[in-house]
Amino acid sequence: MTAARIVGGDPRALARAATAVENRLPEAETLLRELFPHTGQATVLGITGSPGAGKSTLVAALIRQIRAEGLSVGVVAVDPTSPYSGGAILGDRIRMQDSHADPGVFIRSMATRGWLGGLAAATTDMVLLLDAAGYDVILVETVGVGQDEVEIARLADATLVILVPGAGDDVQAIKAGIMEIADVFIVNKADLDGAARLVRELHASLQLAHRSDRWVPPIVKTVASLGQGIEELLAAARAYLAQAPRKSRSREIWRLRLREMLREALLARIPDEAVGTAAEAVAQHRQDPYTATRELLDQLFDSGRNE
Amino acid sequence: MTAARIVGGDPRALARAATAVENRLPEAETLLRELFPHTGQATVLGITGSPGAGKSTLVAALIRQIRAEGLSVGVVAVDPTSPYSGGAILGDRIRMQDSHADPGVFIRSMATRGWLGGLAAATTDMVLLLDAAGYDVILVETVGVGQDEVEIARLADATLVILVPGAGDDVQAIKAGIMEIADVFIVNKADLDGAARLVRELHASLQLAHRSDRWVPPIVKTVASLGQGIEELLAAARAYLAQAPRKSRSREIWRLRLREMLREALLARIPDEAVGTAAEAVAQHRQDPYTATRELLDQLFDSGRNE
Repeated sequence: MTAARIVGGDPRALARAATAVENRLPEAETLLRELFPHTGQATVLGITGSPGAGKSTLVAALIRQIRAEGLSVGVVAVDPTSPYSGGAILGDRIRMQDSHADPGVFIRSMATRGWLGGLAAATTDMVLLLDAAGYDVILVETVGVGQDEVEIARLADATLVILVPGAGDDVQAIKAGIMEIADVFIVNKADLDGAARLVRELHASLQLAHRSDRWVPPIVKTVASLGQGIEELLAAARAYLAQAPRKSRSREIWRLRLREMLREALLARIPDEAVGTAAEAVAQHRQDPYTATRELLDQLFDSGRNE
Repeated sequence: MTAARIVGGDPRALARAATAVENRLPEAETLLRELFPHTGQATVLGITGSPGAGKSTLVAALIRQIRAEGLSVGVVAVDPTSPYSGGAILGDRIRMQDSHADPGVFIRSMATRGWLGGLAAATTDMVLLLDAAGYDVILVETVGVGQDEVEIARLADATLVILVPGAGDDVQAIKAGIMEIADVFIVNKADLDGAARLVRELHASLQLAHRSDRWVPPIVKTVASLGQGIEELLAAARAYLAQAPRKSRSREIWRLRLREMLREALLARIPDEAVGTAAEAVAQHRQDPYTATRELLDQLFDSGRNE
């Protein structure tokens, strides 16, 4: 019932389902199981970069552009610093009071505190939900330096990495691994001093990088706050997608996702009480944590045996 | 044997063990099991903040100060943008060529790519190793925006959060949760314009924050590159520690750590081949991922039954 309403585009059913996914309620899994056959149509773009790079402004500009093309867009924000709230984008320059009223836009921020790892699985579920609900493009916005966030961005069909001139340690960050995940580079705030230099440095780094798919990530200059470069950015992302196999449908990506889902499911089977008792013993130095972990695992598999 | 050498302060045994911990080799667990009774003496300080806040410069200044007090110091850097290499701190202004030769300083950078979640567990292990090796103070440096990094910083006895004037979205970041984990705030680069304003904003935010332990985090101004404010910073951290129960010995922290260790251990038990087959089926839309996960779980418990 609910599944049919979501596929049919009922916004209230979608909002309720999104809340269930976010809170990891059991009914979310049942629902997603029914919805899965309806997924696989959306284009998923990952957007990542340091805080202050202008991700939310860029997302707002992308929403406008995508809507202007007549396509619908869902946004999943996994960035705790992103100024979204209840389906609207907040912030002085980018307030979009219309997005509440526009059924072609759906925005959800994911909580990131106190999860310790379930975030990638929850984000995957949210993307599947929006995909089943028929959104043409899904933007997944993450902060680009945390490990989980990079993993989440990697689950998109194309990953856009935002850099800004003068952020201090650009080159360090580039060297530290962002090079490996970017399908398109965005130099945002391209009207600032240092933009040309950053583009040069990026080009130089790209010369040294070796990608197994031989794709050379284009570098697109944007001024997101003025909407400049956004069409070019979408064109660059589409150029990548046109020649790449869809990551969201690849065996390798599903292998990562299933491992994440399994881990979450297994962890849920370990009773809190047992972990608490073990934690007490370790805190008092009565037991080492490695032995405690082994014993908890043994208990888990024993209880599985008796089910 | 190795455990005794590490407790005895053999630098080569420690370096080899650190590499084993970093690479998650099985012998690391055996070793840490033996070393655990020797842990619990070190003071663990977590240092977190956005890229560009000057964390590595501050760490270098802290090392100097701690060494000047006659204490030894271990550093675990979980920040991919941190310029450490092979036990030395790199960078123009902060090159410390002596740190290689000083047995009172041990620095390790943790890799952060391709782990999908094991980082917190690996960091915990590295801290336990340095603790057992007798380092008086252990600094754990992380980037403060990713979920894993915040969790890692939370595992320290005291968490120091670095902010810098003019970083654009300070207040956003503060509101987004850094307020909840900071035991001491550092306003670094305090000679820059905007430092006084940032301190004022922080004070205002602190008025609104409610901590269950009623601690009001002090705000310490530093110019790490000139060594200014470092003594005051350490004094502030010690003032917090003097009135706080040691987090690294608390049941709550060990509960989090054990869950993290369990997560990692569980992943090791998931058979790659079965996951690959399931991933293929899901990628081809022959099966939904939720049913696939359930079936993999059932297989896992079946194989446990036949062990």
